[in-house]
Amino acid sequence: MKVHLITVGDEILIGQVTDTNSGWMARRLNLIGARLTGITSVGDDEAHILYALQQALGQADAVLMTGGLGPTKDDITKKALARFFGVELAFHQPTYERIIRFFEQLGRPTTEAHRQQCYMPANAILLPNRMGTAPGMWFEQQGKAIISMPGVPYEMEALMEEEVIPRLQKYFPGLPIAHRTILTAGEGESAIAARLEKLEESLPGHIKLAYLPNLGQVRLRLTGSGPDEAALRLELDHYSRLIHKLLGNIIFGSEQEQLEAVAGRLLREQGKMLATAESCTGGYLAHLITSVAGSSDYFRGSIVAYSNEVKMKQLGVSPQTLEIHGAVSEAAVREMAAGAIRALGADVAVSISGIAGPGGGTPEKPVGTIWMAVGDGSTTFARRIQAGKNRLKNIEYASVHALNFVRQFLLGQLQEKAGEQPA
Amino acid sequence: MKVHLITVGDEILIGQVTDTNSGWMARRLNLIGARLTGITSVGDDEAHILYALQQALGQADAVLMTGGLGPTKDDITKKALARFFGVELAFHQPTYERIIRFFEQLGRPTTEAHRQQCYMPANAILLPNRMGTAPGMWFEQQGKAIISMPGVPYEMEALMEEEVIPRLQKYFPGLPIAHRTILTAGEGESAIAARLEKLEESLPGHIKLAYLPNLGQVRLRLTGSGPDEAALRLELDHYSRLIHKLLGNIIFGSEQEQLEAVAGRLLREQGKMLATAESCTGGYLAHLITSVAGSSDYFRGSIVAYSNEVKMKQLGVSPQTLEIHGAVSEAAVREMAAGAIRALGADVAVSISGIAGPGGGTPEKPVGTIWMAVGDGSTTFARRIQAGKNRLKNIEYASVHALNFVRQFLLGQLQEKAGEQPA
Repeated sequence: MKVHLITVGDEILIGQVTDTNSGWMARRLNLIGARLTGITSVGDDEAHILYALQQALGQADAVLMTGGLGPTKDDITKKALARFFGVELAFHQPTYERIIRFFEQLGRPTTEAHRQQCYMPANAILLPNRMGTAPGMWFEQQGKAIISMPGVPYEMEALMEEEVIPRLQKYFPGLPIAHRTILTAGEGESAIAARLEKLEESLPGHIKLAYLPNLGQVRLRLTGSGPDEAALRLELDHYSRLIHKLLGNIIFGSEQEQLEAVAGRLLREQGKMLATAESCTGGYLAHLITSVAGSSDYFRGSIVAYSNEVKMKQLGVSPQTLEIHGAVSEAAVREMAAGAIRALGADVAVSISGIAGPGGGTPEKPVGTIWMAVGDGSTTFARRIQAGKNRLKNIEYASVHALNFVRQFLLGQLQEKAGEQPA
Repeated sequence: MKVHLITVGDEILIGQVTDTNSGWMARRLNLIGARLTGITSVGDDEAHILYALQQALGQADAVLMTGGLGPTKDDITKKALARFFGVELAFHQPTYERIIRFFEQLGRPTTEAHRQQCYMPANAILLPNRMGTAPGMWFEQQGKAIISMPGVPYEMEALMEEEVIPRLQKYFPGLPIAHRTILTAGEGESAIAARLEKLEESLPGHIKLAYLPNLGQVRLRLTGSGPDEAALRLELDHYSRLIHKLLGNIIFGSEQEQLEAVAGRLLREQGKMLATAESCTGGYLAHLITSVAGSSDYFRGSIVAYSNEVKMKQLGVSPQTLEIHGAVSEAAVREMAAGAIRALGADVAVSISGIAGPGGGTPEKPVGTIWMAVGDGSTTFARRIQAGKNRLKNIEYASVHALNFVRQFLLGQLQEKAGEQPA
């Protein structure tokens, strides 16, 4: 099945809203073997929508559209679709009643704008929207499917999972295409490419390897296509095993796994409780850890010590350490990790202190200098990394690195590594 | 100036990477009055890149491309560009020397892949990339500009700021188009639309109003175009003032301001230090606050109390409160806020405790039930909100709501509001 995505909205073209829907849909469609012919973003303009729709239908079996269905006056997708199919907009009473109930539950009144939202192209099959007011719409024409969904991400996602994906799978047969994704942390794209150079040259023509770097992680994606899906999967497994042999313990997981979930699983398996002590990352590391459902099973909490007073009072960092070595130092992060174990009653703690920027850098400690420590109260390892100049990227990079540091500690890998300094 | 964006990469079409570059570029280009004709994403395929480029040049004065310039073998944009212009790829020695120096600074070796990266279309004007290895490329043809940049976001962003934007402004004259963005928090899109209905009807044809809702915030965007830019700006200011009159204190700022920066500015002006005590948001609120450079001037830190032990030991929440009312209760968040002031030495504290989901809900406290409190040690206000079912959205929504709660507290607005309960 070939699919084209169209996102509608002036707000995308002027950059007031970043289109994250397309990425989510692309990922989800890939899992069912659909192949994207492209992604097009157009403004709130009927002629542009109609042109994009015609172009997309020329390339793809199904066209998925998002945006332009809300209750306000700049929404235009429905009118464009009615014109495209040559039908009228008709009032849909059940949708109106559902919207009234939806707002009653929230304790808020409905408005005339909500009533306007209930006019739909007469040929639409309506797809119930559990998360919001505007239903999705499914159209069929000459064996092709056109689907329109609201642009609010969580509404679109629920509609895709519950309505659109099952209908697409029923309407179009699958194609034999398969992927394997191998996740690494702690090494750069070029260094990994050098280690895999010979393997890449040995790959058959129907299997490709791609590198997807992002802030301290590189994902490796093997993609294959062929008539025999079972044989294809075996082949991909074979090359995946070869990559594991060549890269060893920089690999932390596979497919959609996330480093925070992998670290969490290790903690759970080992029956250990984690705590964090954060300075420059300001709570982002704790956020990554707690973004995983069920993380309270292995995460006690964090002390975000954004001032020296809090580092001393809550984490027991000594005034001498701060005066002699500074808050961004090996001595400080070691004391912070020890303090987090004591204060939060944890088995393992990781600490971070650094200069996120843009201010605060010095010649010896430029912006991007980040110290971190991980330990269990008896053994503590410290590491200095040099990140870049962008504040938010540095916060994310340091947090990802610290998660990987915890993973390596739990796996007992730090002793073997040169450059680590156990206490 | 009309601009079309093309993002290149199989990884985008299979959803392994979400294209955030387009949104960033659209926003940046909008500020210089450029008008986007559309955004197209294509795979790593020479024919598709060439087709998209031709289509884009048919509509726009400048085409900005990202992706496909990295050191690994799936990168293909340069070859497509050389074919498009009918030129050879030529080795560029200064770029190679810069890459070697770049990696020397990082203490890492260069590879053959980096050498390959130094072959460029012979007609390219190279744009230095301060953040990475692949330079940007600027091409001119028949009065139009074609620009190619790496897909790594912070590399592209630095190239845009330092090279591409200044060159575009020199190459193309500006067009009279203007925007005003008004930022609100705490009320839904439909309710706001109802309050602005008459104003919307009174808008002249060349001025439009759009609603951009996102997790507890709604941005209102006035867009106008016309021959006289000064008159246009006065008109937009006029309608902007009318909107301020109609919406009052749900407006927290304008243009690119962020709620976390607005709250920070109020703290700085009032000379107050903030602390947070977070349960279900797990550090995300502290992350929002500390994402603002200079936030250490007014933020002491946070205690992320992800277990009842930490709530009791670090924040002084009483065991009775937890037993009788539970951790997700008005009594608990009031004690958490008071505890954060004491423990972290702050003037103002905000606390959050809720059920982020997907597990942990009960009939009385379903998933999405969130309590929060804000206070200064003498007066404390508490509020219960009902978020949705998506864990990450709930974390973000609760954090944004808490920031707005702090803003309202600092402005002395909470006393006036029905439903608030001061201690």
